[in-house]
Amino acid sequence: MSSSASGSLTTPERLFLESAQCLEGVESLSAFRDWFADYRQNHRFDVIRRGLEQLDGWHFQKDNGNLVHHTGRFFSIEGLDVRTNFGHVHHWMQPIINQPEIGILGFLCQRIKGVLHFLVQAKMEPGNVNGPQISPTVQATHSNYTQAHGGKQVPYLCWFLDRTRARCLVDQLQSEQGARFLAKRNRNMIVQVCENEPIKVEEGFFWLTLGQLFALLQEDNLVNMDSRTVLSCTRFTGDGFTAKYSRRTTDATAFGADILRSFQSRDREGLHDMYALTSWLTHMKTTYSLQVQRVPLNTVHDWFVEDGMIRHQKNRFFRVIGVEVAIDNREVSGWHQPLIESTKGGIICFLCQKHHDILHFLVQARVEPGNFDRLEMAPTIQLTPGNYDADHPEHLPPFTALLLESEGIQTRYDALQSEEGGRFYQDQNRYQVLELDPGRDLPLPPNYTWMTLRQMKEFIRFNNFFNIEARGLLSCLRPELPTCSPRLT
Amino acid sequence: MSSSASGSLTTPERLFLESAQCLEGVESLSAFRDWFADYRQNHRFDVIRRGLEQLDGWHFQKDNGNLVHHTGRFFSIEGLDVRTNFGHVHHWMQPIINQPEIGILGFLCQRIKGVLHFLVQAKMEPGNVNGPQISPTVQATHSNYTQAHGGKQVPYLCWFLDRTRARCLVDQLQSEQGARFLAKRNRNMIVQVCENEPIKVEEGFFWLTLGQLFALLQEDNLVNMDSRTVLSCTRFTGDGFTAKYSRRTTDATAFGADILRSFQSRDREGLHDMYALTSWLTHMKTTYSLQVQRVPLNTVHDWFVEDGMIRHQKNRFFRVIGVEVAIDNREVSGWHQPLIESTKGGIICFLCQKHHDILHFLVQARVEPGNFDRLEMAPTIQLTPGNYDADHPEHLPPFTALLLESEGIQTRYDALQSEEGGRFYQDQNRYQVLELDPGRDLPLPPNYTWMTLRQMKEFIRFNNFFNIEARGLLSCLRPELPTCSPRLT
Repeated sequence: MSSSASGSLTTPERLFLESAQCLEGVESLSAFRDWFADYRQNHRFDVIRRGLEQLDGWHFQKDNGNLVHHTGRFFSIEGLDVRTNFGHVHHWMQPIINQPEIGILGFLCQRIKGVLHFLVQAKMEPGNVNGPQISPTVQATHSNYTQAHGGKQVPYLCWFLDRTRARCLVDQLQSEQGARFLAKRNRNMIVQVCENEPIKVEEGFFWLTLGQLFALLQEDNLVNMDSRTVLSCTRFTGDGFTAKYSRRTTDATAFGADILRSFQSRDREGLHDMYALTSWLTHMKTTYSLQVQRVPLNTVHDWFVEDGMIRHQKNRFFRVIGVEVAIDNREVSGWHQPLIESTKGGIICFLCQKHHDILHFLVQARVEPGNFDRLEMAPTIQLTPGNYDADHPEHLPPFTALLLESEGIQTRYDALQSEEGGRFYQDQNRYQVLELDPGRDLPLPPNYTWMTLRQMKEFIRFNNFFNIEARGLLSCLRPELPTCSPRLT
Repeated sequence: MSSSASGSLTTPERLFLESAQCLEGVESLSAFRDWFADYRQNHRFDVIRRGLEQLDGWHFQKDNGNLVHHTGRFFSIEGLDVRTNFGHVHHWMQPIINQPEIGILGFLCQRIKGVLHFLVQAKMEPGNVNGPQISPTVQATHSNYTQAHGGKQVPYLCWFLDRTRARCLVDQLQSEQGARFLAKRNRNMIVQVCENEPIKVEEGFFWLTLGQLFALLQEDNLVNMDSRTVLSCTRFTGDGFTAKYSRRTTDATAFGADILRSFQSRDREGLHDMYALTSWLTHMKTTYSLQVQRVPLNTVHDWFVEDGMIRHQKNRFFRVIGVEVAIDNREVSGWHQPLIESTKGGIICFLCQKHHDILHFLVQARVEPGNFDRLEMAPTIQLTPGNYDADHPEHLPPFTALLLESEGIQTRYDALQSEEGGRFYQDQNRYQVLELDPGRDLPLPPNYTWMTLRQMKEFIRFNNFFNIEARGLLSCLRPELPTCSPRLT
């Protein structure tokens, strides 16, 4: 399939919007649930905690204390010295995950009965809080797909490696957690294969529409982080395409229509246009500094290797622990690895509000040590209360008090979502979208600004602008056409 | 002035296009020439070569051999170890300029008699080949505007530092030469002040329209590199604005109309759409690797400090030399500094060709050691023949042979342009745009693709996608409305 924009190809925006409207695909959601429950039951796994010194294949290097795999592949835990003028703490050291390779996170898609379907995979990861979760068709580290651990071939990978066989609807480099990873990026892909291409559904895979995925995103810990970052790259507007929608009165059920309207608003309809937003971001990047230096893990202040784990002296932020894994449907049958166990109770929240009748989101410019370019745009509130000193409530980030208010604030989204179970141990955050009543004036610190969804997605197209927490939350917002749902042809 | 996109503000695209059509501003081009000739005559400067060991304020550090200023500011010459799978040489070491601070390059603009005028500055730099050149209103390193060398206040700088006083039409971080600088970026700005704001034209400054600047860009070495990079960020199309133009027959004078048409083409009219282009670029970034490591200058192989300069053993690539400078209109009256003297005879060329009747440019994905994100998009040909082995003509980059053809190729732009005289000694390259006859099929290596001007400018909005050589050449292409030129009101 050619990548050229011939008139006969439906635009990605239209394909995504049509699929988002379909709450029933070739298989119903209840068929999915049966299949998934069955899968969960039949796929045994055991995760046993082990001391880091007892992990097969892993060791602390003699000279620098870094935690590495004996092959030098996968990832390593190293030290980082961080200096910044952002926030309350201007110099610290911390362990960081160094995984410089670029992996692939990709959904294989096909129009089935006229509607784009996504081939999802039920996938077990050692850190998952609840067994398998829904993952993209392909979720492969570079080591994975060059088969560093001598396992099985990754199914469907060929469609992502050979760009002539499929049409790339999304193909971007996007960041991962900047507080945990050093400049880590993955290739986020959605590829569409021709309708007449026979695609065999392997065991553990299932076709879902985007509408069905949105429904599952309402549930706790079901759609994994890798799925969410890829889905966040979808757009519902673009050059030469705007869906028809009508204005409706404001009520809870109309939120999906407000989402669509914000996606499809023109740049000039926003409180700020892209010129002003780009200027704000440039100003932020020249206002805030970040100098990071990789240092030996054994020189990192305030952190210790103790009781088989790496931990902070006040038990804050995160610990690096070791696990032994036995899962029967993986490329290999069992292994040992380190995992990051973060402080529990994280909150990731976007405030939104209508300005000029268009929904805007309150975006934060936020420095994190592992960021590729010092700062990325983040949700309004990104907070783990347990990491803050109870004696210094003034150190809590702006808008935290709003989380406790109920007057004049509507909850539009509220679910627990998991971070990547291949690196994080039982790490779930509360993802929220709260809508403020229009007209309520919110004073903004200089590193916050209002954006429409269209503007946010415009930045997301060009890599490394929004952090993974923001993208993960955006992926949960379903645009809703206020007409009746389309059906399969 | 508010940054909000109120309906009453003319869009930047329209302001730029209108100004580009005006070949006469409040002052005529001949008045400019008289003023500039006068300025050149009255501003004495002397640049005397000196050995690097004899530069006041500069020294080679004892332990690592790096060339640094005694304050630790300005910039330093360090060593770099480079590994890549791009090109013919996969491992080398070289000296590199390390200047981590972000400077400001900015034009102050104002609508005068209805048309946007740019306040240009006649500016002398020690490396300039021909005396003063036209520079942006403000051209300030971070040391400059925090006054590290205790000089005078930079005129007009306040308009760029206080974002509430002017409207930012352009405000982006853009890269500089990736073969010479380590991840160097400057803030490229165009700010518009209100029409009723009295702006005093200081000595050495002059108002020009964009049309007049385009006329001066046809001449050799007149508009400096910093001006060109800022001007390359202008756009002539955008959300909600498309200028009316009619199609004309193909001839040399119609090239400006073809430029405008390419700027204003819709994404879907291109040979590839932005989805396909982004995917291609992502593929390139995962195909090519770049590992750079800062190393002591005295460990760099094949380079020597000899005869008061740093040079390559085969006298290739560049030399670092020392100069003593005496200029009477600078912030300080005289100083010593190192400069980079590159091999002469560089060629920077874009091939363009009509596809579906729309002008496309042949863009190269190119790895350079100092790039912020391994590769940036570059002109079709970026070549200094003297750096290549005459015994290995097969190492010359693709399309080089086309430079010698005349059949079926029209020269659309051809001028010598200077690189930044504050860092580079008498460094000029031949900038060319060549148009291939439509229909001629050009086989492309995988790291080349065709793009419309609109698509190129779309990437340029989001920082660090196009290198400075490409941007400098794009800035020379004037879009032309095929109607008569607008006049001042």
